[in-house]
Amino acid sequence: MSVIEERLEAIGLQLPGLFSGPQGLDLPFDLVRVVGDTAYISGHGPMDGSTPLMVGAVGGELTLEQGYEAARATALSILASLRAELGDLDRVAGWTKALGFVRCAPGFDRTPAVINGFSDVILELWGDAGRHARSAIGAAQLPFGIPVEVEAVVLIRP
Amino acid sequence: MSVIEERLEAIGLQLPGLFSGPQGLDLPFDLVRVVGDTAYISGHGPMDGSTPLMVGAVGGELTLEQGYEAARATALSILASLRAELGDLDRVAGWTKALGFVRCAPGFDRTPAVINGFSDVILELWGDAGRHARSAIGAAQLPFGIPVEVEAVVLIRP
Amino acid sequence: MSVIEERLEAIGLQLPGLFSGPQGLDLPFDLVRVVGDTAYISGHGPMDGSTPLMVGAVGGELTLEQGYEAARATALSILASLRAELGDLDRVAGWTKALGFVRCAPGFDRTPAVINGFSDVILELWGDAGRHARSAIGAAQLPFGIPVEVEAVVLIRP
Repeated sequence: MSVIEERLEAIGLQLPGLFSGPQGLDLPFDLVRVVGDTAYISGHGPMDGSTPLMVGAVGGELTLEQGYEAARATALSILASLRAELGDLDRVAGWTKALGFVRCAPGFDRTPAVINGFSDVILELWGDAGRHARSAIGAAQLPFGIPVEVEAVVLIRP
Repeated sequence: MSVIEERLEAIGLQLPGLFSGPQGLDLPFDLVRVVGDTAYISGHGPMDGSTPLMVGAVGGELTLEQGYEAARATALSILASLRAELGDLDRVAGWTKALGFVRCAPGFDRTPAVINGFSDVILELWGDAGRHARSAIGAAQLPFGIPVEVEAVVLIRP
Repeated sequence: MSVIEERLEAIGLQLPGLFSGPQGLDLPFDLVRVVGDTAYISGHGPMDGSTPLMVGAVGGELTLEQGYEAARATALSILASLRAELGDLDRVAGWTKALGFVRCAPGFDRTPAVINGFSDVILELWGDAGRHARSAIGAAQLPFGIPVEVEAVVLIRP
């Protein structure tokens, strides 16, 4: 078993089903695109297959704590896509950057505290190799009603 | 004639005038910035030179279908900039990633169906080499009233 | 003294304190992440240490001119982080891309004129090597009430 999968199990996390759009919506892009030693990860949300695990705006229908959990779930959806593309999460040599978007209710601006859910999962699993640059932006809308979307870039081993 | 230009002609698409800001607005950045074998493409919209081809919010003044067409026009504006910078679109060896923004009317969240207009043009022209990672985010505002803005990264040949 | 620091002094600019979150907010990410010859810079705003230098929406509480100044201050905060990470700003061999977000009051869409504040500082200091691809997007919300956030990518010398 891979080191990262062992850690996932040790901290009690499970990967969701591979992201797919809701029925009837074509998504003509790659969840992960590998170019040389870099993998570019498409925007993901807190999805299990085609099912959103949470919907709503943070600071409105959802609390900050729920937004944080949505960002953790987003990290797990990204890991499911990376495992599908790379075969083994241990091929992720290091994290480079992440760009996170939060659907905010009017007046809510604690976007970094939300996207911390993503960063915390990555650091729990990869330690120092999980360190990354990051932005946390308030989006007007995100697809499928999801509260969080994150795209990322990682360095991979051959 | 280049292979990509032949395909453009075959599917009846024409490139618009090279993007420039409206009169009086200085835009002190490069439409395309080449670093090594990578070209970084600035945010483009559905523009013909300095003229927006569509304005408004998708789900409001504009329908989803019009948003999709705006994303197709955005792809063509990007290609005009790439041709100007690279001399020949055949120098684009592959597409890496795209980050799309949609100006959404309240309640409209089908941003992926809009940005599909961009992805479809790239895949029609480049086939497998056009595959890319992607995000589709709802923006609060975009410049010049445009409904769609896309930035992208491509791999180039010397 | 480094060439860039000399130019900073010559044009009368000073770097602010290194960005840190407001008390009580953990920010588990790197301000700058170096991978190979590339430095990925996290989203920065017009901050002096943990103090926002400006808050509000451009076109509302803040004028366009104030938004432009906020974008200049954002560039200086980024330079403080680069200096801390690289030791010397002269190690920045060239600028690659920047992604700027502007918190817009309803109806304000002159986001490029705001983000020009960032681009102008970089070009004043680096000249041709400061040229970069760029996007300027209207965000629904930004952290800590700041009006501008910019993330960027630069090429570095060993």
